[in-house]
Amino acid sequence: MSTQQVAFLGPEASFTHLATQVLFQHEKLVPLRTIPECIEAVTSGKVDIAVVPIENALEGTVPLTIDYLYHEANVSVIAEILAPIQQHLMVHPSNVKRWEDIQTIYSHPHALAQCHKYLSYRFGKVPLEQSTSTSAAAKYVSENEQNCIAAIGNTSAATEYGLQIMEHNIHDFHFNHTRFFVLSKMKKSIWQAGHTKQVKTTIMLTLPKDDRSGSLHQVLSVFAWRKLNLSKIESRPLKTGLGQYFFIMDVLEDDQVPMMRGAMEELAALGCEVKSLGSYYTYETKESAD
Amino acid sequence: MSTQQVAFLGPEASFTHLATQVLFQHEKLVPLRTIPECIEAVTSGKVDIAVVPIENALEGTVPLTIDYLYHEANVSVIAEILAPIQQHLMVHPSNVKRWEDIQTIYSHPHALAQCHKYLSYRFGKVPLEQSTSTSAAAKYVSENEQNCIAAIGNTSAATEYGLQIMEHNIHDFHFNHTRFFVLSKMKKSIWQAGHTKQVKTTIMLTLPKDDRSGSLHQVLSVFAWRKLNLSKIESRPLKTGLGQYFFIMDVLEDDQVPMMRGAMEELAALGCEVKSLGSYYTYETKESAD
Repeated sequence: MSTQQVAFLGPEASFTHLATQVLFQHEKLVPLRTIPECIEAVTSGKVDIAVVPIENALEGTVPLTIDYLYHEANVSVIAEILAPIQQHLMVHPSNVKRWEDIQTIYSHPHALAQCHKYLSYRFGKVPLEQSTSTSAAAKYVSENEQNCIAAIGNTSAATEYGLQIMEHNIHDFHFNHTRFFVLSKMKKSIWQAGHTKQVKTTIMLTLPKDDRSGSLHQVLSVFAWRKLNLSKIESRPLKTGLGQYFFIMDVLEDDQVPMMRGAMEELAALGCEVKSLGSYYTYETKESAD
Repeated sequence: MSTQQVAFLGPEASFTHLATQVLFQHEKLVPLRTIPECIEAVTSGKVDIAVVPIENALEGTVPLTIDYLYHEANVSVIAEILAPIQQHLMVHPSNVKRWEDIQTIYSHPHALAQCHKYLSYRFGKVPLEQSTSTSAAAKYVSENEQNCIAAIGNTSAATEYGLQIMEHNIHDFHFNHTRFFVLSKMKKSIWQAGHTKQVKTTIMLTLPKDDRSGSLHQVLSVFAWRKLNLSKIESRPLKTGLGQYFFIMDVLEDDQVPMMRGAMEELAALGCEVKSLGSYYTYETKESAD
């Protein structure tokens, strides 16, 4: 059997790369530039699998992923990866001695936001510059040894670009995690050692009519009387006008009690348009050593 | 009575500026750089009123606004403004004759996304550069006459920076609107000519316990049996861990049937933590002449 190709949201050493490496140790990993490119690569058969971020504990759902999966693509979620997000401050090895005199700090806007308290307390007067990824920030710092500048990113970025970490875990919230979807055209979920006990099913649906309090109430009845627990419910604009939404719901169930089939039939009977992204297991990655 | 000061998300000629001018013709308008700065200016009493974007028909809720209103601020919504979003392609007057040979197109990432189809069809090979606002893009183009470059923005930006519009209404979706919240420390809603018939109330709530299908179902019952229509329901992360959310709901009611008081009491009795942002009218602005 030939090696599977796994696309991920790059560049190398991104958080998605770290998460992808945990589940795919023997496959060929292909960094792509954008979330739509990753999803398109699966749809068109250029790769077998793609890994993209779907939700962060602080920032919420990644709108681009959810919108693209709803409007543009027809792929299944075959696993999800839950990974801790740890941010570190790193400089070029030549600047280790003068690191407290940093002139500018580079990182992705989300990473800068995640370290807001540390940065204002410790480097309140140092300008912050946005980069397209934490990894790109590390690369820039590695290429500008003559400037006393720093990047914020993960350990993998420090290793990849030969930077030295001066302060570990500078993010404000220490429970911060990101969820990644593992996508494929095949509907077969990944089942290997280390997954969580419960199966998760992600569905996207539109309500049957405009009376939103009434019809959303009906939809939730479908799950409530079956004691199916929703671990997530969110709405996103349908892009057909203000106030028109579709809903994304994650439903948890134990392996032993498959109630989802009946629920799906009832949703259809109510007149909902339902798109199931598949049923899958969750793989949690551990915090890295440092 | 002294003139009221109204902060808005700047810079001058931004879409928020356009919307603010419709409702506030005689007040002193103060452009501020970020959404938190606008909200802080109201909270601290530096200004009387602030206008910030809350939701776009394509992009969805503006997370920064909703999160700041939930976690950080204690202000009321006293009106909302609904404004159409129209994007135009503009160049420096010196470059009118060679506008079809544009080398680079500048705009805010949302505006570039909103014109995605036009841009890929008409200028598929021209690089796109991100700017911090549509207005900043127009300013940059006005200051770089020697380069054959273009900006995407509104008519007000073209006027402000003396640019000439070469193509009107290049946005892909022609129903695109943005909602703006008018915020104040006073709880008194704005009531002047031109508002819509129905009163809207925005509430933010957390569910009483972890059984999400059951408790959200209960919460919606409160509205369903009263026939109160929810024009919006969304969830946002509580920032306390993945899968923990608060909900934003917009409830519509006719002036004559004030059912909200009973609903709020019942929500509290269920054990929800509820924060009301206030009850207010909607003001719709017309499409501009061109």
